[in-house]
Amino acid sequence: MAKRIDKVQQFLQEKNIDALLIKSKTLKKWMSTLTGSGCQILITKNQGYLIVDGRYITEAKEKEHDLTIVLHNPHLTGKNYLGTVEQLLKENQCQSMGVEASQMLVKEYQAVSQLGVDIHLLDEDIVNLRIVKDDEEIEAMKKVIQITDDIYQKVISQIRVGMSEYEISALVHYYSIKAGAQQMSFDTIVASGPRTALPHGRPTSRCVQKHEPIMIDFGIQYENYQSDMTRVCFIGEPEPQIKEIYDVVLKAQLAGLSAIQADVKACDVDKAARDVIEAAGYGEYFTHGLGHGLGIGEDGEGPILNSQSQTILQEHMMMSCEPGVYVPGVGGIRIEDDVVIMDGKGVPLNQTTKDYIILEEK
Amino acid sequence: MAKRIDKVQQFLQEKNIDALLIKSKTLKKWMSTLTGSGCQILITKNQGYLIVDGRYITEAKEKEHDLTIVLHNPHLTGKNYLGTVEQLLKENQCQSMGVEASQMLVKEYQAVSQLGVDIHLLDEDIVNLRIVKDDEEIEAMKKVIQITDDIYQKVISQIRVGMSEYEISALVHYYSIKAGAQQMSFDTIVASGPRTALPHGRPTSRCVQKHEPIMIDFGIQYENYQSDMTRVCFIGEPEPQIKEIYDVVLKAQLAGLSAIQADVKACDVDKAARDVIEAAGYGEYFTHGLGHGLGIGEDGEGPILNSQSQTILQEHMMMSCEPGVYVPGVGGIRIEDDVVIMDGKGVPLNQTTKDYIILEEK
Repeated sequence: MAKRIDKVQQFLQEKNIDALLIKSKTLKKWMSTLTGSGCQILITKNQGYLIVDGRYITEAKEKEHDLTIVLHNPHLTGKNYLGTVEQLLKENQCQSMGVEASQMLVKEYQAVSQLGVDIHLLDEDIVNLRIVKDDEEIEAMKKVIQITDDIYQKVISQIRVGMSEYEISALVHYYSIKAGAQQMSFDTIVASGPRTALPHGRPTSRCVQKHEPIMIDFGIQYENYQSDMTRVCFIGEPEPQIKEIYDVVLKAQLAGLSAIQADVKACDVDKAARDVIEAAGYGEYFTHGLGHGLGIGEDGEGPILNSQSQTILQEHMMMSCEPGVYVPGVGGIRIEDDVVIMDGKGVPLNQTTKDYIILEEK
Repeated sequence: MAKRIDKVQQFLQEKNIDALLIKSKTLKKWMSTLTGSGCQILITKNQGYLIVDGRYITEAKEKEHDLTIVLHNPHLTGKNYLGTVEQLLKENQCQSMGVEASQMLVKEYQAVSQLGVDIHLLDEDIVNLRIVKDDEEIEAMKKVIQITDDIYQKVISQIRVGMSEYEISALVHYYSIKAGAQQMSFDTIVASGPRTALPHGRPTSRCVQKHEPIMIDFGIQYENYQSDMTRVCFIGEPEPQIKEIYDVVLKAQLAGLSAIQADVKACDVDKAARDVIEAAGYGEYFTHGLGHGLGIGEDGEGPILNSQSQTILQEHMMMSCEPGVYVPGVGGIRIEDDVVIMDGKGVPLNQTTKDYIILEEK
């Protein structure tokens, strides 16, 4: 059932490395292999191996038909799985092997360094290996984003004056897990009133009041892919100053979306949104980058959209577009969609409205 | 507000190391310092430093009064925080420094190795530094366990025939976050019917039926400390075979609890519970160790209770006691309490009944 073996082998060709040892859950998920800690993947230019210990052999035989399954038995050989790696590297006449820098603790690196091949520590290259999504990944992202929109609707239909941020966050978790989310993409953000001036306000016991902004930023992991969305809603009409900020942020978000195109530099997309906010006089309150890559979502995803990012956007990259303005003592607004580049243009996948979301007082 | 500096300094004395560099969130939580990635702690035999970058300086000055705050400015010095560490090591005439092996990726280790002092990679020693809890930690654990018992009651009061495992898990998350949990301690386990034969069954869309076991194993992180509990409940009376297994597991759990005492070897506690299950003919179906340490709960907690563990239990250690029997095709039972050693004896802190939990059919 392993996927994207050819993509890894092409990567090996391009980087002129003979093999890649895969230990991260992220790459295992991306390759749709078993993900347990007793499962390691070794890809050479022509072969692919799943190295497992006894605990995983039954599951491996049932599920894995694309990689050669190799059982290693530490009790028999007195070596850990690296003994098997060493042997496979020899059989395949490999002179070099890439390893994921994010996975290499010192002790293991010391062991890996003694396998008799050149070791390449790979960092950004590994993130970039996943940066352009294939059709299957885009379908997976569409699905998780659709479920996420649906969860948001269910949550806001329950929000009442006097409900605590904790309780709103609890509703987010309830509907997420009920829908089959494996986990939340990150710690859910729920902030209300002046606390929305904190870009990453974790929920508290504060109770929401009429007219004030209620910011919810959350995402779920569903079938290994992670969504991320932010909306701000209100019970009754927002105050004029918050409305003004909302309008600026929305205009900036739409400008960012329009700027997301193939062959555009990521920093120029950030600038397109930032210019709108600066022109409105709120520049100093937009204190973070415009967006980040999306996908499996762990160990970093590209592209990063900020004022330094030199990444050239390409067809089928996925990223968030999430400008925000946070005025201390007053409040903040952030509006975030998940975006994919299709036919050269940025397409936001979220269906939740970006008009003011005004809840009825019940 | 930093705590337990003296405990770390005593550790440095015992290990004959001049300084400890702390990077893990776990130890930062344990020391009640700021936990951000831009905050590092350096403890020497006589001094304690909080090294922060500009993002954290305001919060540091507000909250930290026990460690000397040192601002490092990478833009000014062209070095990362290790430049500041190097300088502090010199000022304090340190010849050696301990680092947490679990935090040391290769690149950072290479940098740390060039600081001009002997580097000690610490692994198990760091886990053992936290193994005996102080009064404040025990109070924190009592509180989180009490909240956890309460969440369990709320969840089971909602369980109905036909409810999916996803939905039950969603209720667990809902009541946990609503109660102010920072996060779940681990991926919540909900399994029903024959799926309870999986010791770690993640929830599915399977709907619960009358008479079958419903296993819930969950924990929350509250004010940095993590609980962990397992109970099995039923809608209507359980089947005789499951009842028999339940009785055996409960007897084993009580035997384990009685065996938890100061000055006893951890493997002997495991044996006390395992003997009961083996005597009943279910030995082959108890496929894991009896328990594990509790506390902050990340990066490992001691003591481990299994057939190999040579740890001698001591006053104020905290651990789970969770025997289980899992019969494929039939089902499984696990009963888990969180236990602290007080006045030499194991005291279970959970108040949830261990009798059959029979829910009314509504």
